[in-house]
Amino acid sequence: MSTPSVRVTIKDVAAAAGVSKGAVSLAFNDKPGVSDATRERIFAVARQLGWAPNSSARSLSRQSVDTVGLAICRPARLLGLEPFYMEFVSGIESVLAERDCSLLLRLVGSLEEEIGLQERWWRERQVGGSILVDFHQEDPRIGPLGRIGLPAVAVGHPSLTGGFPSVWTDDAAAVAEAVRYLAVLGHRRIAHVGGPRGLGHSAIRTTAFERTLSELGLDRGPHVETGFSGEDGARATRSLLLSAERPTAILYDNDIMAVAGLGVAAEMGVSVPDDLSLLAWDDSQLCRLTHPTLSAMSHDVHGFGAQVTRVLFDVLAGKDVTSRPVATPSLVPRASTASPRS
Amino acid sequence: MSTPSVRVTIKDVAAAAGVSKGAVSLAFNDKPGVSDATRERIFAVARQLGWAPNSSARSLSRQSVDTVGLAICRPARLLGLEPFYMEFVSGIESVLAERDCSLLLRLVGSLEEEIGLQERWWRERQVGGSILVDFHQEDPRIGPLGRIGLPAVAVGHPSLTGGFPSVWTDDAAAVAEAVRYLAVLGHRRIAHVGGPRGLGHSAIRTTAFERTLSELGLDRGPHVETGFSGEDGARATRSLLLSAERPTAILYDNDIMAVAGLGVAAEMGVSVPDDLSLLAWDDSQLCRLTHPTLSAMSHDVHGFGAQVTRVLFDVLAGKDVTSRPVATPSLVPRASTASPRS
Repeated sequence: MSTPSVRVTIKDVAAAAGVSKGAVSLAFNDKPGVSDATRERIFAVARQLGWAPNSSARSLSRQSVDTVGLAICRPARLLGLEPFYMEFVSGIESVLAERDCSLLLRLVGSLEEEIGLQERWWRERQVGGSILVDFHQEDPRIGPLGRIGLPAVAVGHPSLTGGFPSVWTDDAAAVAEAVRYLAVLGHRRIAHVGGPRGLGHSAIRTTAFERTLSELGLDRGPHVETGFSGEDGARATRSLLLSAERPTAILYDNDIMAVAGLGVAAEMGVSVPDDLSLLAWDDSQLCRLTHPTLSAMSHDVHGFGAQVTRVLFDVLAGKDVTSRPVATPSLVPRASTASPRS
Repeated sequence: MSTPSVRVTIKDVAAAAGVSKGAVSLAFNDKPGVSDATRERIFAVARQLGWAPNSSARSLSRQSVDTVGLAICRPARLLGLEPFYMEFVSGIESVLAERDCSLLLRLVGSLEEEIGLQERWWRERQVGGSILVDFHQEDPRIGPLGRIGLPAVAVGHPSLTGGFPSVWTDDAAAVAEAVRYLAVLGHRRIAHVGGPRGLGHSAIRTTAFERTLSELGLDRGPHVETGFSGEDGARATRSLLLSAERPTAILYDNDIMAVAGLGVAAEMGVSVPDDLSLLAWDDSQLCRLTHPTLSAMSHDVHGFGAQVTRVLFDVLAGKDVTSRPVATPSLVPRASTASPRS
């Protein structure tokens, strides 16, 4: 792993941020005496220079960095079934392998647990930097992990990820394309089966879903919040198909929920795509295996993981890193979407 | 992670192995003067007691063990697509999470690369122990990793894994069941699409395949060696269906190859199951999604990963560990197997 060879001191951070050494110290010790704006600027500069308090230990660690951390706050079973994360991890590994580096992978039960874990990983020099995923609105990790100077790349829209350099997919644009496509086919009652409300990208997709319907002059469609599992997708689909205002099209926030939805439609004798159109997200190989095959918002998840990892190496090399989107998921129409029959 | 609190010395190892301290030293320094059998016994005892040369560093490391290593010698893309490894890793993570431990995951290009990596992980105290997978016949990892005293659990038949405690599935029994089932349906020309010849479990399955055919008085069926990818499965299926002695049933060594085989059958106008029966292995959710659904040799891969990890914790706790099989994969018949029409 390429790392800066010059040892960065608190003086360099102070100079680059245009403040005194005392101000840097106050900011990192979470003491009053510096404004929020100054504190944020100091953290950003320190992050960029790769400086953290107790710098001699840090400098030492930076010379032997060969591990990248990733904590995922999802149930273990879901990790094995949800193709997104394994493809994402395979993309991370493809870049790490080129550089003789390993991934330290951990499932956590809460973001608070992740904060403690990342602090420990960084303090004990177990990782040289981390990839942070699944940002929440007002994400609690931003403050503490920014303060300790953890080199990190955030996977999520910059509006969610605080000062961390981020790599993200433009979920709002992709949702708008999905809804407009279903509307063009003639659907007027479109439902959305989304992820947990607390997740930032779920909230962005839900807002975009409602805004696009409104722009098209369509009624606000039903939105069901789920935990991303196949069972959740089945339950949501069943409840939508039993409702008085049964939708003619459903947009899902991943592909295992759409696959489960297809099963529920068959079980209830609802014909896809004649009576119901289903549109999946992520587009792993699952979508090409079902019968009928699933239309999906498709993106290169392996390439996404690889790109995030390359940006982390740029951060670790002290390069100027700006947040950037990867390619927006685009529609791949297959056999599960059509004009509504009635 | 629970670890023995008593500090083990070279004297303890010598006493337990019934040899002198000098003999232990000779064995670990790979010097002449001890027989191969004695050397192996010394390694086994050392492993059991958790002792390794440079014992003070080791003892120190054992007090802060919270990481388990896993190196996988497969292409990155395959890791994201092959459901086996994602489910296996999710099972590992489920046990690690309970114990506040993390997985150090690495893709390697060769077993020689893995040896260097595991030695470094252990020497630099990056892992407390490792899970070793994909054993080859005469596996080159056994000697070097045994000598350094890496605490490890091997995933593979004890005939392949040297002195390491191992957890395995009885592949030979499962293959015999699969072949007998196809024979009972009336198939006489049965083919096998297996993994790379060098892999120990592939060799065990291939031998069991040929032995079972012979026991049933059937001709030795065609066997195709592959690299486990979907493309490999498609290529193998196409070549089998084009051969003069076209088989009426094919047994695959994983499920993505069987899924690909189903696609090839459709492309070539071969009706499944009327003209061709397909039997998959591993039975991830993919097998229930295809049309027709795939019959498979099914096992709990998530539970397998969890079990392997529990055994590793037993090793790390200094418990008496014996090698053991997990439940044998069993046949789940679905729509892709039937009696041959002709």
